[in-house]
Amino acid sequence: MNFTENAIYPPKGYTAAGLHCGLKDGGERDLALIVSDRPASAAGMFTTNRVCAAPVQINREHLRDGRARAVVVNSKNANACTGEQGMADARQTTRWVGRGLGISPEDVLVNSTGVIGVPLPMAYLETGIQTIIPQLDVAGWDDASEAIMTTDTAPKKASARLQIGGCEIAIAGIAKGAGMIAPNMATMLAFVVTDAALSAHALQNALCEAVTQSFNCITVDGDMSTNDTVLALANGAAATNELAGENLRTFQTALNAVCIGLAKQIARDGEGATKLITIRVAGAPTPDDARRVGLSVANSNLVKTAVFGRDPNWGRILCAAGYSGVAIDPDRAAVSMAGIPIYANGGGLPFDRDRAVDALSASDVAIHIDLSIGDASATIYTCDLTYHYIRINAEYTT
Amino acid sequence: MNFTENAIYPPKGYTAAGLHCGLKDGGERDLALIVSDRPASAAGMFTTNRVCAAPVQINREHLRDGRARAVVVNSKNANACTGEQGMADARQTTRWVGRGLGISPEDVLVNSTGVIGVPLPMAYLETGIQTIIPQLDVAGWDDASEAIMTTDTAPKKASARLQIGGCEIAIAGIAKGAGMIAPNMATMLAFVVTDAALSAHALQNALCEAVTQSFNCITVDGDMSTNDTVLALANGAAATNELAGENLRTFQTALNAVCIGLAKQIARDGEGATKLITIRVAGAPTPDDARRVGLSVANSNLVKTAVFGRDPNWGRILCAAGYSGVAIDPDRAAVSMAGIPIYANGGGLPFDRDRAVDALSASDVAIHIDLSIGDASATIYTCDLTYHYIRINAEYTT
Repeated sequence: MNFTENAIYPPKGYTAAGLHCGLKDGGERDLALIVSDRPASAAGMFTTNRVCAAPVQINREHLRDGRARAVVVNSKNANACTGEQGMADARQTTRWVGRGLGISPEDVLVNSTGVIGVPLPMAYLETGIQTIIPQLDVAGWDDASEAIMTTDTAPKKASARLQIGGCEIAIAGIAKGAGMIAPNMATMLAFVVTDAALSAHALQNALCEAVTQSFNCITVDGDMSTNDTVLALANGAAATNELAGENLRTFQTALNAVCIGLAKQIARDGEGATKLITIRVAGAPTPDDARRVGLSVANSNLVKTAVFGRDPNWGRILCAAGYSGVAIDPDRAAVSMAGIPIYANGGGLPFDRDRAVDALSASDVAIHIDLSIGDASATIYTCDLTYHYIRINAEYTT
Repeated sequence: MNFTENAIYPPKGYTAAGLHCGLKDGGERDLALIVSDRPASAAGMFTTNRVCAAPVQINREHLRDGRARAVVVNSKNANACTGEQGMADARQTTRWVGRGLGISPEDVLVNSTGVIGVPLPMAYLETGIQTIIPQLDVAGWDDASEAIMTTDTAPKKASARLQIGGCEIAIAGIAKGAGMIAPNMATMLAFVVTDAALSAHALQNALCEAVTQSFNCITVDGDMSTNDTVLALANGAAATNELAGENLRTFQTALNAVCIGLAKQIARDGEGATKLITIRVAGAPTPDDARRVGLSVANSNLVKTAVFGRDPNWGRILCAAGYSGVAIDPDRAAVSMAGIPIYANGGGLPFDRDRAVDALSASDVAIHIDLSIGDASATIYTCDLTYHYIRINAEYTT
């Protein structure tokens, strides 16, 4: 398998585009479109927030038949808490895209991200959709990945190319997200497409497994948005035989890699973040226990500020593990930061503090926690908590 | 009932003191002692963190008989994650206090707050205990309240005086806490004493009710410490008849007021905080649902930074309510901030933004959420999230 986060291996039978339609003030791209040239299996996972945006509700409807052809996304406006008008606007968007592409509006998935509670400026969208359709291109992924950004500082892309059953298959994914990132899932949107053939059922199962290991293992601030969405399309343009058995497992590994790649980029680009923190929890009774301990540590403002301050503070890590709800035994647990063992056997270990502070200056910080009470493990990704997070979220309405 | 947060009405039969024994660098008070001149009923509630400090374990033992005479507290060092040595040090502290006062070490409750993972400097404590005992005084409460502070910017005191069955009863409480404050309970210590007479059983029940409404309704950063402790003593020096029936309910009201008063002071003094945020959730199916919604909103970094930024952002409030796990209906919910209705009927309400920003400049900000799906309510206290929180927690090891 070839894997990259710097570009997209374009899957066959898809085009994409991204342009400025008028929503963002500075002329940046704010409308993206991804289209399959043939019917595709489609799957989705959505926010579990009781307050969910209009497009999330429309997508749930449109995915009932397990088929889709197009994904339209606007940034800057979330079309959330916009009532009846928001539902009507989301439906209208799917009709405009459907008419422009000559497909059913039911085969269009619609996504919005940005400010909550403001009606969508539909005139911009109408003109934008007319303009974007002629721009669809097999090389349009970079523009699309920029168009879905909100407070992101960089676009997020991940792609895999692999041989399955003698055919070359590609998987391409783009994502956005910066603040309000937490399971399940995040203020995040992610779109993954492949030219492999999968039944809608197999695609939904594969997406579910990949999301469990990726987007549901990241947290920036513990807040969960109203719009979180992961969508997947599989159009079979590279190989028409539906994947099964060993081939399906091979595909799953690649899909997991693409989703984990996107998720790590989201965590690293958390609002105001200076570091990606990778928390590996081992020795847990169950995978879910490992996840709970990891998320408890990842969501601790005290741990996140300590990492920002380059402080090898095992007390805060152990403390957060202790209130995770998992019955850990502090006398059996061991903690290391940046590869340096700092806690074991019920107490702090001697370590070279200057060397530890130096190691914590890196842009990637690993925290390993071995609970020694079982065999299960999990990996959680988060970022540090900084002055800049406060600035972004205190000084701007989002 | 007379209630005050500015002073202590000294309950009969108690003395207190606070001094500098050497733990804090700047010469500030760091050792407190509270003593009842006769045996008292005693009750306690402790952190549910699996990683709990040595003194918490000792106190659980010493409270088994429901009796105690003295409460000793040191700040600057939490005696947590200190292994066997920590347990031995906590026991030794109770022996020194017991010997100095001529009482059993089992009647001494011991408390530590401060840095995790560093052994207690016992020489300071030995000398400090020798010095503090002669300083015990009915007017020593202010010194004691200062001695238990860590990153607190002000001591926390609350007191009530009331007539029950023809006798004047007093309740006095002191507390500390600033960061790492979350149910259940907080990096907080609180000590409440009364000269009323209650059985140990009645005192434990009364404390439990008061804590549920007070210390378990505050959150600063969602982190729960290893040392959280609330202790209560009742020595019957003002009235020897054990409270029951209507008299017990009258006492409960006053105890609740003292604990809520202390809890609000802790929330207002959250690390880096500029505002006390009071979140009232009404119309919930059950009191626990109301608490969960309130805590979800109170723990949202996005809500806390919005209040810091004086942003009447109902989207973030509704969003946090939506992921609380309670089945809210966003179309029935209503939200106001600082008395200004900002959300109802599924959408934002028109309001004077300048007036709202002005109202959010106050040092007390109220958020009211009416879910309109039941009759239960709860009140949660928290504070805003500021640059200064990051500074405190990134630049100092705690």
